[in-house]
Amino acid sequence: MLLAGLKPPGLVKVKLEESAGRVLAAAVTAPGPFPPFPRSLVDGYALGPPVAAPGTIPTGLAGPGVIYRLLGTVPAGSNPDITLSPGTAAAIFTGARPPAGTVAIVPRELVGRRGDFISVPGLPPGRYLELAGAEVAAGEEVLAAGTTLGPAEIGLLAALGFREVLVYQRPRVVLATSGSELLDPAGKEGSLLKSNPAGTPAGHQAGYPGVNVPPRIYNSNFYAMAAAVEAAGGRVISLGPLADNLEEQVRAYRSALEEGDLLLATGGAGGSAGDFTAAAFTRAGGEVLFTELNIRPGRRVIAARSGEKLMLGLPGNPPAALVACYLLARPVIRALGGREPAPVTFPARLAAAIDRPRVERAFLWAQARASGNGWEVTPLPRRPGGIRAAIGANALIDLPPGTAPGPGEEVTVIMLS
Amino acid sequence: MLLAGLKPPGLVKVKLEESAGRVLAAAVTAPGPFPPFPRSLVDGYALGPPVAAPGTIPTGLAGPGVIYRLLGTVPAGSNPDITLSPGTAAAIFTGARPPAGTVAIVPRELVGRRGDFISVPGLPPGRYLELAGAEVAAGEEVLAAGTTLGPAEIGLLAALGFREVLVYQRPRVVLATSGSELLDPAGKEGSLLKSNPAGTPAGHQAGYPGVNVPPRIYNSNFYAMAAAVEAAGGRVISLGPLADNLEEQVRAYRSALEEGDLLLATGGAGGSAGDFTAAAFTRAGGEVLFTELNIRPGRRVIAARSGEKLMLGLPGNPPAALVACYLLARPVIRALGGREPAPVTFPARLAAAIDRPRVERAFLWAQARASGNGWEVTPLPRRPGGIRAAIGANALIDLPPGTAPGPGEEVTVIMLS
Repeated sequence: MLLAGLKPPGLVKVKLEESAGRVLAAAVTAPGPFPPFPRSLVDGYALGPPVAAPGTIPTGLAGPGVIYRLLGTVPAGSNPDITLSPGTAAAIFTGARPPAGTVAIVPRELVGRRGDFISVPGLPPGRYLELAGAEVAAGEEVLAAGTTLGPAEIGLLAALGFREVLVYQRPRVVLATSGSELLDPAGKEGSLLKSNPAGTPAGHQAGYPGVNVPPRIYNSNFYAMAAAVEAAGGRVISLGPLADNLEEQVRAYRSALEEGDLLLATGGAGGSAGDFTAAAFTRAGGEVLFTELNIRPGRRVIAARSGEKLMLGLPGNPPAALVACYLLARPVIRALGGREPAPVTFPARLAAAIDRPRVERAFLWAQARASGNGWEVTPLPRRPGGIRAAIGANALIDLPPGTAPGPGEEVTVIMLS
Repeated sequence: MLLAGLKPPGLVKVKLEESAGRVLAAAVTAPGPFPPFPRSLVDGYALGPPVAAPGTIPTGLAGPGVIYRLLGTVPAGSNPDITLSPGTAAAIFTGARPPAGTVAIVPRELVGRRGDFISVPGLPPGRYLELAGAEVAAGEEVLAAGTTLGPAEIGLLAALGFREVLVYQRPRVVLATSGSELLDPAGKEGSLLKSNPAGTPAGHQAGYPGVNVPPRIYNSNFYAMAAAVEAAGGRVISLGPLADNLEEQVRAYRSALEEGDLLLATGGAGGSAGDFTAAAFTRAGGEVLFTELNIRPGRRVIAARSGEKLMLGLPGNPPAALVACYLLARPVIRALGGREPAPVTFPARLAAAIDRPRVERAFLWAQARASGNGWEVTPLPRRPGGIRAAIGANALIDLPPGTAPGPGEEVTVIMLS
């Protein structure tokens, strides 16, 4: 439902050296052949046509091989000034263009040499001479649209002479966090904190747990969501912390729909008097798709659509927000960036029992490990509260309702990175 | 052998919002408790001690519940100005500090309300009131040194009030490519190219395959290696293209040992007269560890050590250079950055036969796919030459010498990302 009708935000040219991880927006065809000229694939000798008696043969160059007289050496990178007549040869380096008259190339290791003469055993195979266009023909498609650029693809583009490449723009994800209890650890807009010495925590003012200081907590969802958005290929735009105020949220979300390709809000997704997200999405022009999902955590999730743009309201509870972000926002961000939206999902053996069955479909933070015996997954220990629930997880276990498999049983894991 | 004696280059403080993917250089302990104050985990009611008869009870508030009189509402983020005496309660929002006198909190859904009175069925459980420090105690270690920072870890650091974090520096990897036949597609030092229109290939000059233009190819290894180094967490320093000249290479490698934590050279790793890498490594102060490995591709690999610094000479052939980079350089770069050096490796079912056994241990470019049935891997089709050998690969098959397993058999895959 969320992926239907999404429109990637547009295309952009990036320099080759800044293209790693980006997604090709159009197929790439070779502007010319590769290699662009015939070349030697080995260090060895370029041979002219063989003759029975090549002239004076030095003593000591014995054996049954065909004898060639060397005319010189062809280095890589410059045009050979040699023409091979029958019975002559030239030393040649890997990558060099063979001289005119070359009929074959033979690797150094197979050849006997004495002064200006070489002895070549039998007829050398033709595989060491690569013809122009042997690897890529001019005009051939070498990379499909939608390819994610890694080292090999970037190397290929460089080899074909590209210096820029057309990729999808990173989708702009507008992040909003609401909650009157939130402080910003970085001292941004809305923060109550002064700047702090480098490397030390921002707050914990004197008497922080006491009654003289407002009972606030640091805004962690913004930082966690921002990292998750960037890992999915998105670019973060911050709306700043929003007060629990409907009018302020409506104004902010309207501007988010103009500035961004996706609005991601955390907090205010519940159903009580202090939860404005659904109302604010509607007032900002959104058509609500759902306000709840039958999963744990992440039950309180709101989705709305305004034209081609989505608005997602995630829970305020940090691990619930992060689960919902991985399950719902990540596929949307990936699709907007031209990527395959579905996460990598596969069965793994449980290393420890699931503590108890859940009523709803549940997603448990877990650590998946590969070994010579395949994949094994361990659910993270449960701790009080949620702030550390996801620490050390690289996967979620997707647990069907009412099940509590034991050690050695297979479960479905969703990889997080 | 390569990992022994490596020394990570140092530590650096980064802002929390720029810390994704970095590696913690020291354990993090909580500077204060979390939550820093007692708080409500739900939208509901904070209850004072129960009494048998709370005063005037409005008609219509029936049932067997204990009756409380409401004194007001406690929003999140500010200190309550209410004190609960026996038989009184206050509405409270998630995250708010309960007023003095609170003995329990009950969720909204469980409570009947009529005007200023509520009826609470039975004795409410204590789980909705979270005490200060219930999730994290002050001084408790919450993240171990060596943790790679992802969304959950960054969220935790934010929640504890950190705005900066101490991480390993990115190792500086000095990249050198040699080969007199190499052109730079980006028109850098050593390039023969003029600047080009954006988005078009850099070269293919008139007559490029002809004899009037030097038979050169674009330098692709630099771009591929740079992307691989960055993916492994390294920072690239370019030495520029080096001529096939021993003295020039010795000078360049000496400066590389001063500027960088690792030298990565491609080209010149063979054994012929034009291959200077081993000699240049030695002359630049390196003690050669090996000049060949019994693997394909990547046989011609040179490793040398100078003090705590490594010098790696990779083949000039692009896919061989990339295999050697993944197998040898990536673990070194990861170790220098404080990361686990070993790649993710696991068994997968072959989707297609291996074409033929190899004499040496071989690494084949392949595409690994996860499904509900586990992991399946398909070796990439062989093509002429090497420029496209790795395109589309996300894994290497690690093939023991002399084996050619068929479809459905298990092979070991090494994941590339």
